[in-house]
Amino acid sequence: MPLQNDTLIRALLRQPTAYTPTWIMRQAGRYLPEYNATRKRAGSFLGLAKNPDFATEVTLQPLERFQLDAAILFSDILTVPDAMGLGLYFAEGEGPKFERPLRDARAIRSLAVPDMEKELGYVMAAVRQIRRALHGRVPLIGFSGSPFTLACYMVEGGGSEDFRLIKTMLYQQPELLHHLLAVNAKSVCAYLNAQIEAGAQVVMIFDTWGGVLSSAAYDEFSLRYLHAVLQDVKREHAGQRIPSIVFTKGGGLWLERIAAAGCDAVGVDWTLDLGEARRRVGNGVALQGNLDPNVLFADPVVIRREVERTLAAFGSGSGHVFNLGHGVSQYTSPEHLQVLVESVRELSPQYHENQ
Amino acid sequence: MPLQNDTLIRALLRQPTAYTPTWIMRQAGRYLPEYNATRKRAGSFLGLAKNPDFATEVTLQPLERFQLDAAILFSDILTVPDAMGLGLYFAEGEGPKFERPLRDARAIRSLAVPDMEKELGYVMAAVRQIRRALHGRVPLIGFSGSPFTLACYMVEGGGSEDFRLIKTMLYQQPELLHHLLAVNAKSVCAYLNAQIEAGAQVVMIFDTWGGVLSSAAYDEFSLRYLHAVLQDVKREHAGQRIPSIVFTKGGGLWLERIAAAGCDAVGVDWTLDLGEARRRVGNGVALQGNLDPNVLFADPVVIRREVERTLAAFGSGSGHVFNLGHGVSQYTSPEHLQVLVESVRELSPQYHENQ
Repeated sequence: MPLQNDTLIRALLRQPTAYTPTWIMRQAGRYLPEYNATRKRAGSFLGLAKNPDFATEVTLQPLERFQLDAAILFSDILTVPDAMGLGLYFAEGEGPKFERPLRDARAIRSLAVPDMEKELGYVMAAVRQIRRALHGRVPLIGFSGSPFTLACYMVEGGGSEDFRLIKTMLYQQPELLHHLLAVNAKSVCAYLNAQIEAGAQVVMIFDTWGGVLSSAAYDEFSLRYLHAVLQDVKREHAGQRIPSIVFTKGGGLWLERIAAAGCDAVGVDWTLDLGEARRRVGNGVALQGNLDPNVLFADPVVIRREVERTLAAFGSGSGHVFNLGHGVSQYTSPEHLQVLVESVRELSPQYHENQ
Repeated sequence: MPLQNDTLIRALLRQPTAYTPTWIMRQAGRYLPEYNATRKRAGSFLGLAKNPDFATEVTLQPLERFQLDAAILFSDILTVPDAMGLGLYFAEGEGPKFERPLRDARAIRSLAVPDMEKELGYVMAAVRQIRRALHGRVPLIGFSGSPFTLACYMVEGGGSEDFRLIKTMLYQQPELLHHLLAVNAKSVCAYLNAQIEAGAQVVMIFDTWGGVLSSAAYDEFSLRYLHAVLQDVKREHAGQRIPSIVFTKGGGLWLERIAAAGCDAVGVDWTLDLGEARRRVGNGVALQGNLDPNVLFADPVVIRREVERTLAAFGSGSGHVFNLGHGVSQYTSPEHLQVLVESVRELSPQYHENQ
């Protein structure tokens, strides 16, 4: 099925487009009543993520409401460690947790790259089914957590405020953490490649926690493994270029280094001015972002003004993918997200004239 | 009483020193058994902070253990909004909360700068008593939360993960937030000046939450009011220069702008390489920081190595105050902090030769 709307792909490859493409991190999520209805039928978040029918249904829901330029696979970033046997679960009202977090060298040394079809077949089935359901409407983004971000959850056993356990390992037993990160990097790479083979047309790596590291530790424990993953991720499939996006939340200080990791685009959060970001990376990569999700709690006139500011900050030319600087909040009104999407469509073409 | 150890003051003013001075954010805190014993006698955190005898006792405790170059007033960053009538309290196992958070324009418009001696006399009494107890051993640092950081707590009613309420106000009713910030700035300035008159020899402004803002919003809603405070804070008292330190956690991207706000020194967290930070600010300000507090969970040999790395990153010459990049964790072993303090004393003189 030929892609009817390749604006996202083109923007990620810094090719001319008629307007700035938009998708929204967590666009299939709890702010949508139809998502909550499907989740209720599925019984739980994991029931939703592990069932290709449900995953397909919720992946497509935001596309029914908004003129978005991409779908993103509905899944969890912790499917890979779950497939490694750590036992992912969600306690009510809390974030993800592992039944068997990694607390000793033996557990870490015995980890293996999971079998993609056997352990993660439900993800690949969802990718295939979503691709069929999309009928080439927009490209499908596949994704994974970064090796370091996965390691954070695997060692901490869930979210953390201070990342005490993983950082104790980082400083005290760096070689053990390197072993874990190497297994994660191989797994993430195999996972993204399996998604590409199943039909993902863009891949994104979420380095949600890389920003908690020191400048030097970021290079050694996160960036190095992003680089390793990107080196082995397919850049083409079935004759099509597969662009890659890396997003290190809070990584603005290290933008040049991330841009040099081998990705096509870098996601940036709202702490970075997009014009400054562009000056810093030059023509090396496209940029994705970066509206503060809290802007969506304001009135339409404010949302429109902030969209305009974000577009103006990036300026003229291709290479910008509009997004929030973080996932959309569950408390967001879908009508307000509608205003964002419409504003980008309406205000962005002027930045793409005369290309 | 003449100051017997003015190393901190000299370093903050970028004058030559024999070694790199050290103090530690939250050096009087829960990681010290003697602190916990005093807190138990006081009955509660606020019982401790509001009683000058107890506050003096715990302020001096870390100086008995470690060869530190400064004492910092034991207090809470939310004393000012408490004095404005918001009703500060601490729920067991949770952070600070306000009984009467600011939720409407009327509450915000009726705020007034508190009377420093009447409402915050206990803080000034503590400053005076600590100064007497110190006998000129090391300088006493006074402090306040920043206007924006205070506003975060005042509007959210406590800590927050997404700062939804304050950011909704920021985007939707910016003039209302500006009114609140203007009152806070006047209050913070009066508060710091009262501490200086009572005996504080250095002042520090903790902009704990400035880093959650977008680049543009940081300028408009945090930096602008830091600037306002610094413009009116006494730079001299009783013939002595009073250096000022500003610390915006997560503000590394905006370092040059913070350095231009009128402070003598900028605190930096561990995400910023100290050598890069120094190149960026030139000779404009001193720098304070920036070891990841989690390094203290590693063995002495690792702590020493990371101290060395931090000193080497800053390099030779004056203008560096050693500190962590955030407050010391309650789970830290005091023996490990001892290793940090001794390592700085031992390893830093080589960076101060030939000045």
